[in-house]
Amino acid sequence: MRKLLNHELERKTVEQFRTSEKAPFIIVLDNVRSQSNVGSIFRTADAFLTEAIYLCGITSSPPHREIQKTALGATESVTWKYYSKTADAISELKGKGYKIIALEQTDESVVLQNLHIENDQRYALIFGHEVNGVDQEILNKCDLCAEIPQFGTKHSFNIAISVGIVLWELNKKRLPV
Amino acid sequence: MRKLLNHELERKTVEQFRTSEKAPFIIVLDNVRSQSNVGSIFRTADAFLTEAIYLCGITSSPPHREIQKTALGATESVTWKYYSKTADAISELKGKGYKIIALEQTDESVVLQNLHIENDQRYALIFGHEVNGVDQEILNKCDLCAEIPQFGTKHSFNIAISVGIVLWELNKKRLPV
Repeated sequence: MRKLLNHELERKTVEQFRTSEKAPFIIVLDNVRSQSNVGSIFRTADAFLTEAIYLCGITSSPPHREIQKTALGATESVTWKYYSKTADAISELKGKGYKIIALEQTDESVVLQNLHIENDQRYALIFGHEVNGVDQEILNKCDLCAEIPQFGTKHSFNIAISVGIVLWELNKKRLPV
Repeated sequence: MRKLLNHELERKTVEQFRTSEKAPFIIVLDNVRSQSNVGSIFRTADAFLTEAIYLCGITSSPPHREIQKTALGATESVTWKYYSKTADAISELKGKGYKIIALEQTDESVVLQNLHIENDQRYALIFGHEVNGVDQEILNKCDLCAEIPQFGTKHSFNIAISVGIVLWELNKKRLPV
């Protein structure tokens, strides 16, 4: 088995990325504290051709040294916007017809593998603060909650890992193989 | 939708974790540089009740301040071993009947969604260095390679994100819903 060289990976240029049809998911970060997590989420969003990232509240925006360290250039390809209030981002997305899904452990959460994705629908996926999760006021505005089932001692994925698993799973549901 | 409180999450104690039946996956880290990635992988391995993590070569072992920062205690629950040479870990695992799968972009890689998992088989999953990937000498010893398809400008997931996606997907294949 021979490792592929960089020029064999069929990587898009930033220009090709921008003009490509995107996966219909907008990642909304509700007061995420760590810039290193934000950068890592940009890198994952690039890999999955994600429509956009909305950075809300205390979430830092590019350009930022700590974001760049983990984004490794993906802040140039992935579209992003900043909102001082997460609620404003959600109102705007609802107005545009997006279905709003929070990733959070609640009394009504659907497990990720059972989350149904419609092919003609766009989605906003809300991820919350590293310790406090998605704000209750924001949860009240969501159409539904989903969670990744966990079986260990912690029951708290790192937010960047959660984004990776959710984008993988929803893209697969959208384009089944 | 009401957020669950910590005591409602049915988190295992370390003792319950250790005596629980594990998912038959051993994560082998081949010369992983970043302690923060190692810690994050412990946390994810805990969530998916993973059998063990094998830390090889330059990969740091617990206890280590930077590992603890991202593992958040998961080094207490998840079984781990250190090997100075990755090849020794693989020889031992082969001897015990594990099937060896490297996560790497090669000319023969199977895309993750097409990777077939047998229910009576145990697996070692090899993840490599953040920049150089899995060493070619190690690839030559693997039964097969798998890769997560990527569609953006980078074609390089963070290793901790890759571990999260792979453990999610293989656990789902093993216990379909």
